[in-house]
Amino acid sequence: MYSHNKGRMQCDRLWKNARLATLSGNGLGLVEDGLVAARDGRIVFAGAATDAPSIDAAETIDCAGRWITPGLVDCHTHIVYGGNRAHEFELRLAGASYEEIARAGGGIVSTMRATRAASEEALVASALPRVDSLIAEGVTTMEIKSGYGLDLASELKSLRAARRIGEVRPLSVKTTFLGAHALPPEANGDKDAYIATVCDEMLPAVARAGLADAVDGFCEGIAFTPQQIERVFEAAKAKGLRVKLHAEQLSNLHGASLAARYGALSADHLEHVDEPGAKALAQAGTVAVLLPGAFYFVRETHKPPVKLLRQYGVRIALASDSNPGTSPLTSLLLAMNMGATLFRLTVEECLAGVTREAARALGCLDDVGTLEAGKWCNLAIWDIERPAELVYRMGFNPLHARIWRGR
Amino acid sequence: MYSHNKGRMQCDRLWKNARLATLSGNGLGLVEDGLVAARDGRIVFAGAATDAPSIDAAETIDCAGRWITPGLVDCHTHIVYGGNRAHEFELRLAGASYEEIARAGGGIVSTMRATRAASEEALVASALPRVDSLIAEGVTTMEIKSGYGLDLASELKSLRAARRIGEVRPLSVKTTFLGAHALPPEANGDKDAYIATVCDEMLPAVARAGLADAVDGFCEGIAFTPQQIERVFEAAKAKGLRVKLHAEQLSNLHGASLAARYGALSADHLEHVDEPGAKALAQAGTVAVLLPGAFYFVRETHKPPVKLLRQYGVRIALASDSNPGTSPLTSLLLAMNMGATLFRLTVEECLAGVTREAARALGCLDDVGTLEAGKWCNLAIWDIERPAELVYRMGFNPLHARIWRGR
Repeated sequence: MYSHNKGRMQCDRLWKNARLATLSGNGLGLVEDGLVAARDGRIVFAGAATDAPSIDAAETIDCAGRWITPGLVDCHTHIVYGGNRAHEFELRLAGASYEEIARAGGGIVSTMRATRAASEEALVASALPRVDSLIAEGVTTMEIKSGYGLDLASELKSLRAARRIGEVRPLSVKTTFLGAHALPPEANGDKDAYIATVCDEMLPAVARAGLADAVDGFCEGIAFTPQQIERVFEAAKAKGLRVKLHAEQLSNLHGASLAARYGALSADHLEHVDEPGAKALAQAGTVAVLLPGAFYFVRETHKPPVKLLRQYGVRIALASDSNPGTSPLTSLLLAMNMGATLFRLTVEECLAGVTREAARALGCLDDVGTLEAGKWCNLAIWDIERPAELVYRMGFNPLHARIWRGR
Repeated sequence: MYSHNKGRMQCDRLWKNARLATLSGNGLGLVEDGLVAARDGRIVFAGAATDAPSIDAAETIDCAGRWITPGLVDCHTHIVYGGNRAHEFELRLAGASYEEIARAGGGIVSTMRATRAASEEALVASALPRVDSLIAEGVTTMEIKSGYGLDLASELKSLRAARRIGEVRPLSVKTTFLGAHALPPEANGDKDAYIATVCDEMLPAVARAGLADAVDGFCEGIAFTPQQIERVFEAAKAKGLRVKLHAEQLSNLHGASLAARYGALSADHLEHVDEPGAKALAQAGTVAVLLPGAFYFVRETHKPPVKLLRQYGVRIALASDSNPGTSPLTSLLLAMNMGATLFRLTVEECLAGVTREAARALGCLDDVGTLEAGKWCNLAIWDIERPAELVYRMGFNPLHARIWRGR
């Protein structure tokens, strides 16, 4: 995993005098006097100074006792879209009904229209300030879904914009095709026909273009049935793409079990998941991605059954769900605070949820999510006294430095 | 209010091509094509370009259609303190009881001990990153309370640290003496004796040193009775200091009416205020300062009666309540989102609440809080399409530039 030269480890950069939360194994992996060494962008050593081999470093950075965690991973975002829904938010606070807002052009259809109308360049330009807000907090890996285009050209455009974001920023982007997000108005209410288009035209074209790392769907009364989602999952499987699912957010349609049956990377939201669902997730190794920003913003009152997830050993991740309608959130630090404050996740669960478990939810735990030799050297270096401060504060960013692939 | 030269207004700096939310009068005071002109740090014109006189400016800034609001005002903070309570937060999430936390040295007494142990310089140094977080969002005026020293020397030290923050940053600081915050352990449970010390020793010394702009108290079962607070208010009155009160946060002790009777600048929290209390606040012109960060963080469920406050025309402000125990919040943008999401305040109420009404709550509305000729030229210039975006987003800072006293 690393090369020796005269018995000494050679590396490009060495961070010393650091406290580490490596997140390796199942806990926080705390190291009081730690080192991280990188070569060719990958970690060659991360651990206690006393366990380290002799290291020759081209550059050494003294961390002065600061904490280093893995670079953060936001494993569920819809951050590429046209327009925003601030006006709809304003109208709703002023007492407008959902009907009035729909008549005023609000709702997901307004985002779809703005997304269709925007060029790929415009989508990238409007997403970048939001992406930069996450990057400024130490995010080094981010998932981005399509799902506001809802026609082939616009879904491809959204996914290309997502890929482009990973080219213009020091950031790893995982893309997800979410054609089965909502029904576009031109479908005239025919969900089965739209799902057929998703499966037979859109998904194959997306796969052919190599634009998606995974396929997602929204299984809910206001979206698609388990049967319709199953068709999407079958189409994904035929193209060799992993799946994930928006499941049990507003009701229990047994989406978690469905996702588990297809070996889904993750099942997301899960406010209404039940015991068989939790059991299925655990058995399939499907990560439960909790999204407290959406829970908070839409003023949900039914919390995800965290105790049940713990009881069955389901892995728990946390994400921003950054989107214009239900979670205009661009802070994983705040997502952690909400996970703790609203869902009573522990500090350890929150930190694992935006690093190791989020990487697991994206299927890239071999590459990122913990500080371990062989992985990309993605680091977040923090001006804090203890890791709990990352969860405890609200609206405060103690990031000192962020390293992506060794720099 | 401004000088003319050959019939033309002379100014140091002119911001043109801006959209304004002046907050003058009672609404947002929106201006689509606006100008702000400053001379000697004060506004000499703010309004529509079409209404402007001829202006000669030493420097002109093209705002390219960006929005300008008054610099934000955080009218309730406890931002100067030693240590933090992240570990207590972590223990509570891990299931520790309040007793266990107290035994582990947690609670307000832990902050008192750390505050007493810190030098004035250390208090300033530890507060500055938090203050800078608020400044980065356009805050130009901030209130800072004492109340973690709880003995004469430590209260004086805290207030000096607060004043010092206003010297080392481009920021106006209003200080508040909050000796009646909690009972220090050495008082051995004798609240009357401690209040006597507050009134007879601490408050006169604070006033003599000119270290406080106002006097505050915490009226609650876990803190002080209305009778004890009344003694503090009398002592403040004797020194010519305005008062304010932490009232009706956890129960209804009729603190709002008490505050109103003393012509208080503000009554703060108010989750449990009743109709006579709301009426009294309105009649006295006492501002209701709502603190959604604390409501959220301590998971309160009893919301302040916003409709009642509206019904009686009580002025509503919003603040961060930045403090280590119940609101480790350093974002007024997030306070606005919480005010809207949790308390259903409108966009207009939120924006007025962190500008005009917050200035009113600090007794400095003549100087700051709106864009009007004669006031300090404190501006927040935003990269947004409409003011509602400042309330709608979570964890996103669209500040383009911040101006304090004209620069």
